[in-house]
Amino acid sequence: MREVFQQELREVQERLIEIADLVEIAIENATLAFNESNVALADQVIAEDHKIDSASHALDELAINILARQQPVARDLRIVVSALRISASLERMGDLAEHIAQLARYRFPDKVVPKSLRDTFYELGTLDIAIAKKLTALLRSEDIKLAEEIRNDDDRIDELHAGVFDTVLSDGWKGAAVDTVDTTLASRYHERFADHAVSIAKHIQYLATGDFVGSDA
Amino acid sequence: MREVFQQELREVQERLIEIADLVEIAIENATLAFNESNVALADQVIAEDHKIDSASHALDELAINILARQQPVARDLRIVVSALRISASLERMGDLAEHIAQLARYRFPDKVVPKSLRDTFYELGTLDIAIAKKLTALLRSEDIKLAEEIRNDDDRIDELHAGVFDTVLSDGWKGAAVDTVDTTLASRYHERFADHAVSIAKHIQYLATGDFVGSDA
Repeated sequence: MREVFQQELREVQERLIEIADLVEIAIENATLAFNESNVALADQVIAEDHKIDSASHALDELAINILARQQPVARDLRIVVSALRISASLERMGDLAEHIAQLARYRFPDKVVPKSLRDTFYELGTLDIAIAKKLTALLRSEDIKLAEEIRNDDDRIDELHAGVFDTVLSDGWKGAAVDTVDTTLASRYHERFADHAVSIAKHIQYLATGDFVGSDA
Repeated sequence: MREVFQQELREVQERLIEIADLVEIAIENATLAFNESNVALADQVIAEDHKIDSASHALDELAINILARQQPVARDLRIVVSALRISASLERMGDLAEHIAQLARYRFPDKVVPKSLRDTFYELGTLDIAIAKKLTALLRSEDIKLAEEIRNDDDRIDELHAGVFDTVLSDGWKGAAVDTVDTTLASRYHERFADHAVSIAKHIQYLATGDFVGSDA
């Protein structure tokens, strides 16, 4: 019975990694679509988000099924409950990548943000991609050093996010209202994407060490 | 044992209602602070958000404890898992009410949105408050008619949210960048607040009827 359970936990972990892989692809393509006004790539991200949603719901069903059949307690129970939460955050990260792609799509053939902010958004996108890759690696390895790196990347994203508002609200900002709206939303989507990654990293760190780091993002 | 379990489920339900009550107070005060530039009320919402966070985490611990001790299966298991999800959404709704209060606070003594959009935001706030009240009643009664009403209110919020963008992006929009940013964020917070309520309503409806209505918001 114990062996079956361990086998099922590995299945849960594998499925989480598969979903995280899909999220990684989504944010990579969304960022590229956003930076380069690539409408075909934006459409692809939008069309494929349902895969993340389905995989996440299927994982939830598996986790509930394991709870019902295996009746885990203590740490085993927390692993399964955490899987439900990680799955919900991954699904939401997929939605946020989709929103970034939608901004690229609506503004095509124009770019979403004015020239003065392109470097900032390039860095935001690059950091979100790096975070998604570290998250997949963290789910695979439970190497807590990666959780620390994700938190540091998130701190940098928060700085950049604040900087975007400083720029938009400065006297030098010449953007039209549509630029202001899109810039505000895009920056917020990048920030929330990273927040969810930090939340997942905390769950994994908690499972690995027993210490919960702060409250949920 | 069965009786103890039923008693514990009632405890879970009571706690969810308590958190929903706190969320209801938060969105009422945040909306009033937002509409009337009431900085003291905004501060109160911000200062009290931790109560929602703590209550939500305490409920999560209770739910995990019940899973460990009572080992529920079938519908009983789904009730406890749903409680975890409802708790996460309520916590997030509290955060969004806090964000609305923060906008009021930052702009004080000015109002957050220009005159031309005040009626729209008055309606958005009124609908979010109504939704929060219906959610508390739904958690109390499992009266599925309320879930339907929450979905209808959410449809109206989506319309208003789209209308905000139409206004901001129209030629007639004379708002400064700060108005555009705050209006965009405020509208998005109201819309997400309602989305979480719809997601909770779906969980309750699923538990009451066995039919899951669409995918998670």
